[in-house]
Amino acid sequence: MQGLGRKRWVIAEGYIPGASTGSGRAFESHETACILNAGERDASVGIMLFFADREPAGPYRITVPAKRTRHVRFNDLSDPEPVPRDTDYSSVIESDVPIVVQHTRLDSRQAALALLSTMAFPAE
Amino acid sequence: MQGLGRKRWVIAEGYIPGASTGSGRAFESHETACILNAGERDASVGIMLFFADREPAGPYRITVPAKRTRHVRFNDLSDPEPVPRDTDYSSVIESDVPIVVQHTRLDSRQAALALLSTMAFPAE
Amino acid sequence: MQGLGRKRWVIAEGYIPGASTGSGRAFESHETACILNAGERDASVGIMLFFADREPAGPYRITVPAKRTRHVRFNDLSDPEPVPRDTDYSSVIESDVPIVVQHTRLDSRQAALALLSTMAFPAE
Amino acid sequence: MQGLGRKRWVIAEGYIPGASTGSGRAFESHETACILNAGERDASVGIMLFFADREPAGPYRITVPAKRTRHVRFNDLSDPEPVPRDTDYSSVIESDVPIVVQHTRLDSRQAALALLSTMAFPAE
Repeated sequence: MQGLGRKRWVIAEGYIPGASTGSGRAFESHETACILNAGERDASVGIMLFFADREPAGPYRITVPAKRTRHVRFNDLSDPEPVPRDTDYSSVIESDVPIVVQHTRLDSRQAALALLSTMAFPAE
Repeated sequence: MQGLGRKRWVIAEGYIPGASTGSGRAFESHETACILNAGERDASVGIMLFFADREPAGPYRITVPAKRTRHVRFNDLSDPEPVPRDTDYSSVIESDVPIVVQHTRLDSRQAALALLSTMAFPAE
Repeated sequence: MQGLGRKRWVIAEGYIPGASTGSGRAFESHETACILNAGERDASVGIMLFFADREPAGPYRITVPAKRTRHVRFNDLSDPEPVPRDTDYSSVIESDVPIVVQHTRLDSRQAALALLSTMAFPAE
Repeated sequence: MQGLGRKRWVIAEGYIPGASTGSGRAFESHETACILNAGERDASVGIMLFFADREPAGPYRITVPAKRTRHVRFNDLSDPEPVPRDTDYSSVIESDVPIVVQHTRLDSRQAALALLSTMAFPAE
């Protein structure tokens, strides 16, 4: 299968809740960029983060191997710097081959978790 | 980085729940338009609100600086008039430079919060 | 403002939970098609419903006045027939002028409500 | 009505929670691809699943009859192999006639269910 999707995607919403209930990694409040590389070549992906009141951070470098998916938690990004909690941000995701990106948040600040998801915006 | 996105976006859903549980601004029921301006020029943004049974309201004027994101709570809009609670509305968001817009609602009317999100519709 | 959007939209998901908790219309489990007509001419809208194991139903006829929004609850559709509960369906929404359509479900079968939303798919 | 939509769709997010609360099939944690075939010819659909650390699985073969919708639970897919729980995946859905695909998850791991939904990405 040839590569599917686009090379640049935007997620305008971004917010990692600073608190969680429940136990374990599965129930920790988190934001995820789910990235599919359906093609035959590994994807070199860079994520830039934009904030309300400071310069952008990044790029955060990620490899998504050919014919694999990678669900990247923004919580886990640490190089060049960790992603601040309880802070508004947006992200731009660029790849050297076509990919598809979907955005998800799990919020477990309260005893019952809440979910949101949307396909990212494919920028020309 | 050049500007990313489009100059006009539509969010057909709009509804600010009139009640909240939990404490503090983070848990107040709200609707948000998350706006990313990834370009090098500040964005002058105008938001028009459409209702079921009255003339549209606005434009609400907002600036999103270059290379910044702004998560605009509809709850906070006050000029030319506040946004009514428990009332159906839609919004059209226009900018003089390309932006990307994502829509989110946090509903805390009950003890456990609920979330929804979707990319706005990029109108030609 | 000229009309915004497209004349045909698709919502592939459809399911009205048959049960609710909480009191009043606001907390009744429901599915909604939020329709914005930002243009200067009233929109004549027809909704067709598709099911898993029977012929399609409709069209359900709705008018969305110029410069108005209408958040149509599928629960309220009754002519030519009510929408069955606890039943999978899809919907195709056609208009004689451009509109924008967003899909939302509020599920209150359990004590804490859940929400989902997505922009409908703009069919060519 | 002619066929509506596209022949190839991508859902980058995929995750079936391994646990559920509540009773019965309706409240079992599940992921769904809601597929509408609005056209006059039956659709032969194949679903490929992509994982983080192994070769893709599939195709899973499904028929969506003409003028019908089918809400396919990934939980129910078994041939050529079941879909693992608590495991990240993505899916690519291909059809021989135009269809529309929407993605939904119901998560009932905790006492209050959570929902997410988004239109799938229509790959060229």
